Amino acid sequence: MSGRQKDELEGVTLLGNQGTKYEVEYNPGILEVFENQHPNRDYFVKFNCPEFTSLCPITGQPDFAAIYISYIPDVKMVESKSLKLYLFSFRNHGDFHEDCMNKIMNDLIELMDPRYIEVWGKFTPRGGISIDPYCNYGKTGTKFEQIADHRLMNHDLYPEKIDNR
Amino acid sequence: MSGRQKDELEGVTLLGNQGTKYEVEYNPGILEVFENQHPNRDYFVKFNCPEFTSLCPITGQPDFAAIYISYIPDVKMVESKSLKLYLFSFRNHGDFHEDCMNKIMNDLIELMDPRYIEVWGKFTPRGGISIDPYCNYGKTGTKFEQIADHRLMNHDLYPEKIDNR
Amino acid sequence: MSGRQKDELEGVTLLGNQGTKYEVEYNPGILEVFENQHPNRDYFVKFNCPEFTSLCPITGQPDFAAIYISYIPDVKMVESKSLKLYLFSFRNHGDFHEDCMNKIMNDLIELMDPRYIEVWGKFTPRGGISIDPYCNYGKTGTKFEQIADHRLMNHDLYPEKIDNR
Amino acid sequence: MSGRQKDELEGVTLLGNQGTKYEVEYNPGILEVFENQHPNRDYFVKFNCPEFTSLCPITGQPDFAAIYISYIPDVKMVESKSLKLYLFSFRNHGDFHEDCMNKIMNDLIELMDPRYIEVWGKFTPRGGISIDPYCNYGKTGTKFEQIADHRLMNHDLYPEKIDNR
Amino acid sequence: MSGRQKDELEGVTLLGNQGTKYEVEYNPGILEVFENQHPNRDYFVKFNCPEFTSLCPITGQPDFAAIYISYIPDVKMVESKSLKLYLFSFRNHGDFHEDCMNKIMNDLIELMDPRYIEVWGKFTPRGGISIDPYCNYGKTGTKFEQIADHRLMNHDLYPEKIDNR
Amino acid sequence: MSGRQKDELEGVTLLGNQGTKYEVEYNPGILEVFENQHPNRDYFVKFNCPEFTSLCPITGQPDFAAIYISYIPDVKMVESKSLKLYLFSFRNHGDFHEDCMNKIMNDLIELMDPRYIEVWGKFTPRGGISIDPYCNYGKTGTKFEQIADHRLMNHDLYPEKIDNR
Amino acid sequence: MSGRQKDELEGVTLLGNQGTKYEVEYNPGILEVFENQHPNRDYFVKFNCPEFTSLCPITGQPDFAAIYISYIPDVKMVESKSLKLYLFSFRNHGDFHEDCMNKIMNDLIELMDPRYIEVWGKFTPRGGISIDPYCNYGKTGTKFEQIADHRLMNHDLYPEKIDNR
Amino acid sequence: MSGRQKDELEGVTLLGNQGTKYEVEYNPGILEVFENQHPNRDYFVKFNCPEFTSLCPITGQPDFAAIYISYIPDVKMVESKSLKLYLFSFRNHGDFHEDCMNKIMNDLIELMDPRYIEVWGKFTPRGGISIDPYCNYGKTGTKFEQIADHRLMNHDLYPEKIDNR
Amino acid sequence: MSGRQKDELEGVTLLGNQGTKYEVEYNPGILEVFENQHPNRDYFVKFNCPEFTSLCPITGQPDFAAIYISYIPDVKMVESKSLKLYLFSFRNHGDFHEDCMNKIMNDLIELMDPRYIEVWGKFTPRGGISIDPYCNYGKTGTKFEQIADHRLMNHDLYPEKIDNR
Amino acid sequence: MSGRQKDELEGVTLLGNQGTKYEVEYNPGILEVFENQHPNRDYFVKFNCPEFTSLCPITGQPDFAAIYISYIPDVKMVESKSLKLYLFSFRNHGDFHEDCMNKIMNDLIELMDPRYIEVWGKFTPRGGISIDPYCNYGKTGTKFEQIADHRLMNHDLYPEKIDNR
Ligand SMILES: [Ca+2]
Ligand SMILES: [Ca+2]
Ligand SMILES: [Ca+2]
Ligand SMILES: [Ca+2]
Ligand SMILES: [Ca+2]
Ligand SMILES: [Ca+2]
Ligand SMILES: [Ca+2]
Ligand SMILES: [Ca+2]
Ligand SMILES: [Ca+2]
Ligand SMILES: [Ca+2]
Ligand SMILES: [Ca+2]
Ligand SMILES: [Ca+2]
Ligand SMILES: [Ca+2]
Ligand SMILES: [Ca+2]
Ligand SMILES: [Ca+2]
Ligand SMILES: [Ca+2]
Repeated sequence: MSGRQKDELEGVTLLGNQGTKYEVEYNPGILEVFENQHPNRDYFVKFNCPEFTSLCPITGQPDFAAIYISYIPDVKMVESKSLKLYLFSFRNHGDFHEDCMNKIMNDLIELMDPRYIEVWGKFTPRGGISIDPYCNYGKTGTKFEQIADHRLMNHDLYPEKIDNR
Repeated sequence: MSGRQKDELEGVTLLGNQGTKYEVEYNPGILEVFENQHPNRDYFVKFNCPEFTSLCPITGQPDFAAIYISYIPDVKMVESKSLKLYLFSFRNHGDFHEDCMNKIMNDLIELMDPRYIEVWGKFTPRGGISIDPYCNYGKTGTKFEQIADHRLMNHDLYPEKIDNR
Repeated sequence: MSGRQKDELEGVTLLGNQGTKYEVEYNPGILEVFENQHPNRDYFVKFNCPEFTSLCPITGQPDFAAIYISYIPDVKMVESKSLKLYLFSFRNHGDFHEDCMNKIMNDLIELMDPRYIEVWGKFTPRGGISIDPYCNYGKTGTKFEQIADHRLMNHDLYPEKIDNR
Repeated sequence: MSGRQKDELEGVTLLGNQGTKYEVEYNPGILEVFENQHPNRDYFVKFNCPEFTSLCPITGQPDFAAIYISYIPDVKMVESKSLKLYLFSFRNHGDFHEDCMNKIMNDLIELMDPRYIEVWGKFTPRGGISIDPYCNYGKTGTKFEQIADHRLMNHDLYPEKIDNR
Repeated sequence: MSGRQKDELEGVTLLGNQGTKYEVEYNPGILEVFENQHPNRDYFVKFNCPEFTSLCPITGQPDFAAIYISYIPDVKMVESKSLKLYLFSFRNHGDFHEDCMNKIMNDLIELMDPRYIEVWGKFTPRGGISIDPYCNYGKTGTKFEQIADHRLMNHDLYPEKIDNR
Repeated sequence: MSGRQKDELEGVTLLGNQGTKYEVEYNPGILEVFENQHPNRDYFVKFNCPEFTSLCPITGQPDFAAIYISYIPDVKMVESKSLKLYLFSFRNHGDFHEDCMNKIMNDLIELMDPRYIEVWGKFTPRGGISIDPYCNYGKTGTKFEQIADHRLMNHDLYPEKIDNR
Repeated sequence: MSGRQKDELEGVTLLGNQGTKYEVEYNPGILEVFENQHPNRDYFVKFNCPEFTSLCPITGQPDFAAIYISYIPDVKMVESKSLKLYLFSFRNHGDFHEDCMNKIMNDLIELMDPRYIEVWGKFTPRGGISIDPYCNYGKTGTKFEQIADHRLMNHDLYPEKIDNR
Repeated sequence: MSGRQKDELEGVTLLGNQGTKYEVEYNPGILEVFENQHPNRDYFVKFNCPEFTSLCPITGQPDFAAIYISYIPDVKMVESKSLKLYLFSFRNHGDFHEDCMNKIMNDLIELMDPRYIEVWGKFTPRGGISIDPYCNYGKTGTKFEQIADHRLMNHDLYPEKIDNR
Repeated sequence: MSGRQKDELEGVTLLGNQGTKYEVEYNPGILEVFENQHPNRDYFVKFNCPEFTSLCPITGQPDFAAIYISYIPDVKMVESKSLKLYLFSFRNHGDFHEDCMNKIMNDLIELMDPRYIEVWGKFTPRGGISIDPYCNYGKTGTKFEQIADHRLMNHDLYPEKIDNR
Repeated sequence: MSGRQKDELEGVTLLGNQGTKYEVEYNPGILEVFENQHPNRDYFVKFNCPEFTSLCPITGQPDFAAIYISYIPDVKMVESKSLKLYLFSFRNHGDFHEDCMNKIMNDLIELMDPRYIEVWGKFTPRGGISIDPYCNYGKTGTKFEQIADHRLMNHDLYPEKIDNR
């Protein structure tokens, strides 16, 4: 089979592994990386994650969200199965929606040191109101800092229609 | 449970509270804030509020709207249950659509002193015409003033399709 | 102008009337009727009413629904502006969703004595769950009783997709 | 050119005619027919007519609707350009929604003597409520009478979602 | 390669053939068949054909439609590339919409002698009105005759929303 | 406030209660009922529950589903907040999709002894395939047994389009 | 009732008035204004008007459109009921689509002297083609002139999908 | 963890197994079953399989389809991961669309001996036409034979809109 | 009838004309213009043309597309009925999709000498792939040249979802 | 037949060819070009390719994606049938999603030396997460390098809604 070879996948231990453990306490240590094969190019990778759930820090009630993560890799790239397990680890974690999104972005910056990254969470409503936090980041001292400012300035000029149904 | 702790939630009295009172006369005093844990970052929080109702100031007829509120917090952040109760307090308030949206934005600026905020109301039609006011604001003397101008200039270039059904 | 004449509209006092009063306490007395001009034919009339709001009987929190009312008239037909005012009169009324729908149908049966009627309410969620009650009725001792059974038996085999957004 | 020949189109005077006159007073005399070439087969023809407008008989305010007409022809079939002109002739006609639909069906029965016909109007809202009348008819003393009953009994078990936007 | 073998495809001359000729005059002789491998089972095959175009018999103006053909095969099945070429042969054919649909069904009955077949054309509007003819057929003296009646009786109880856009 | 009174709500302890406990181990004991005020009428109540999550019994991986529950009440009706808490209690429960749906229906039959009930779960895919179990039940020895058979026979003739995006 | 008071509504004579007259000859004199209460802020007001109809200047055939009007008010704001009556007055007016949109914008500029305004008409097709004119305007010698240029330059980069159905 | 236990999963060897082999030659031997825990109840299980691909038996060109499989289990139920691998095994299999669907249904009948089963494939177009075969089956000599007839007779009365985009 | 007068329509010979001839060989000579009444304003006119068909230059197979044409007029404006006839004249024309779009734009530039124009064709797939060419043009030596560059640079950042169904 | 002539199609050997071979091992040598007839104009060509499938490099499991390729041609243009065959050649190729998209873009740059190109892949989920890589390129030392930066900076500000169904 042509394509990326085994020895180009060092550090990837979870993908294809039988004994996968699904942690349910917040644990950024689960995250794994592999190497970017196209570091001379700026390009985007987006993860669509519609199966996110955490707990309300006040009431303990489960919250649900779809999370969209987009980033421009530098040297390291997050492996998607480890990302899945990391997001599952919020299952018993209590935090405000706004804090969860910032925390996820901080962890991925810490892990990959990406050129650019953004995280958008779209939660289901409680009491008729839903909350959608969005944060982004560009590597300090690079053009990606300006890109982050530009994308924040133009963020969500067209809010999607919401009717709670 | 990991995450934001109780002592980081001072001033939040309504969330999880049993004896919630649903006021039906306009009352901005209901609004409560908590502290932004990520003040060194510019990020957006959006509230989707499709259950807004007020009264026509001339005829007394109930009006209905979906309201979308987006802001970049500075130090204070509005707590969502108090926002819900505040919006419910328009239930017996009579005002033109345009005035309601400006009033809500003024109250939230007064409450949070945010870096940036915008409010978009999308009302149901009367006599075949519906009205959608949009206002925004950036903190005077900061880059957010320019961001507000930029977003107004690019507002709603793609009006959603409306057929009154 | 051709069409239905003024003298065929006796009893219709609210449509086109300037001093319309919007009552906010439940009042079936608002309802008005006019005469069916096609009584020798069975036909359906549907009202789409997406601006219904009432209160939770336990917490006082406002509830919101779209209500769909379909009926086959006999001699009397409900006038639509009076129906609008009647539905608005639930604005400060506290009742379970299931009870509201049954009450509306009972009032319209009392008013019009229709051959057949059905009422379907589709509410917005609270705590992640939404409730959609449906009731119907066929005039006792007529074929419409069987029609009511038939329509109940075939009710909502294809629930619409709900994701709370 | 193969297909239906000129001499099979007697009675069709409006289609392709330059001097078309657009009447704006209700006039069923505009309607024209041509001959059914497949009378030994029961089949449906549907007209989608989303550009219907008439006047409110009380207030004179314009009303708008999409009308769906379906029929099983017997000997005569209504020509579509004449149908368009007939529907346009309601432009200055004042009538209740329910009466317009019954009148259209009566005129088409008078014109074509069809085996079966149904007419469904879907109007835009006034005061937050919209009205959708539906009537149907099967030729007396034929199986189409039972078909009309069957279709009425199963009419609109799945009302489309309406939110007035 | 497993699956249907070459010798089970006698009579199929167009599929995979380089010198395909696209006729533009109505020609049912193009149609080819292959043998049904599951004759002991009643099952449906549907063709979705959204690229149909013919001419108006009066004005010569091109007409456009999506055609949906569903049938239950008996011994012979129509090969899809020959069906494509047959439908393309209406390109310069002038006929009323209702006649085109009946003609297509007649040709396919002649070709395949199917147990059941139905043809539904959905045309684009002229002058604000669009026409959707539907015809069907069940083999005489079999249960499929009753099936045809049943399907006609239940045809299109939910007309799709049309707004000419 | 008019409507259902406090003394008609005996047994409802969770709705409006501050100290709500969110159990995460399967527990049908959470469920509460209130009394049906319209027992002489057959009518439907539907719960839309798009926030269901459980665990795979083999791998421990979280599963996600939207669940639609429809029933015709007899004497008792399930209170919606208790239903929410009950469904949340599957959060750490491991079972096949098919078993979860049957278990939920069994518990609600045990709780309410309804005239009729059905439960439809629509899960997110694993490995490109998603599973949607549907079960129903009519009270033995009543017409609702036949209604259950009728609804099963007509279940899901129009599968919704799924593309895993 | 809190909100805008009667004495802040001088000049508004049509809203809530019983004897509304629906003119059917083009008449910009119908338009009324009220005073902007937030003149120190640039904000948008959009009117969705899906019930527009006029006549073809050549053939007299009725045309139908949805019109979207967005403006940034200066001192005066157009009252929505008078706008409705003004748009209804095109009912017997014959003009090309492009001319209607420019005329409406000219009349509203004359009436309100707004900071910015744009008008977009989306018509139904004739002969398979539909026409959507869009014009805009910024007050001469102000930044709104540049805003108009900017919005024209970025107009409709994503044409909506049209299939005439 | 509550729920189905390991010893109730005999015969399930693929789910959660690390060394999964993806066969690309048609192989029904991959399929595995587990035991139905609710054999006294008739209920449906549906598999949504939008990632099906096979080859054209004439040209070798890849074909793509979404397949929907619904069945009422008797004693055995097909395990979903083995179903995934089985469907993947068509990857290099050449067969007509109609034959693939019949073959899949035959294999599942052979495997599970279900009370009822149906298979619907919806393929992408070639040359502007797409093909959607549908077959079903009820166990001979049981009521499910009649259910199969009933469902075939009512199959796809509302073909989805297809425009090849 | 108010509005544009006959003497302002010189050169328009096809609109409303009875003897319309539908040419089927490419002929830009069909195109007609009328005079722009608002030459001091930059505004857009868009034509939605979903009924375009041409032939493949290699195989002769018919191709189908929706074409979107937007332009800013200078002195002359294309009359829409002549545009319809011009586009119909591609019916027997063989060309690559990319060449058709460029040719249409070239012809309209030649005809109208517009300030700005763009043409976007969206074709149906062949062999699973569809092609959508887009070209634009701004008058040389004017600001519209920069506008063309700007619009090309921002073209189609959000490709519509295509699944060939 | 007017349009592009045979001698303007040198190098195109696959289109219309009977003996098409469908390779299933990655092979960029399949790609063919033809000459751009409009080299003095910058314009876009987009290919919608919803039938892409490859293999996971770790597990061998098939992956599925829709790929959108947009480019501004210089001298050479890729012929679409050869593109189809090239994309089909990934059928047995194992690579990460991110690597496939970069590889496709590299091959097309090598083939055509385009002024600008971008490739966006949208994959189906595995374990609840889907991955959408996007890369682009502008010819070094030309304005298209800046265009590539601009388009990357503005990429996907509005992620489409994903719910894995
Ligand atoms: Ca910054
Ligand atoms: Ca929604
Ligand atoms: Ca709508
Ligand atoms: Ca009953
Ligand atoms: Ca939704
Ligand atoms: Ca709507
Ligand atoms: Ca018959
Ligand atoms: Ca439409
Ligand atoms: Ca049973
Ligand atoms: Ca989908
Ligand atoms: Ca200008
Ligand atoms: Ca459309
Ligand atoms: Ca489509
Ligand atoms: Ca240029
Ligand atoms: Ca599609
Ligand atoms: Ca989806």
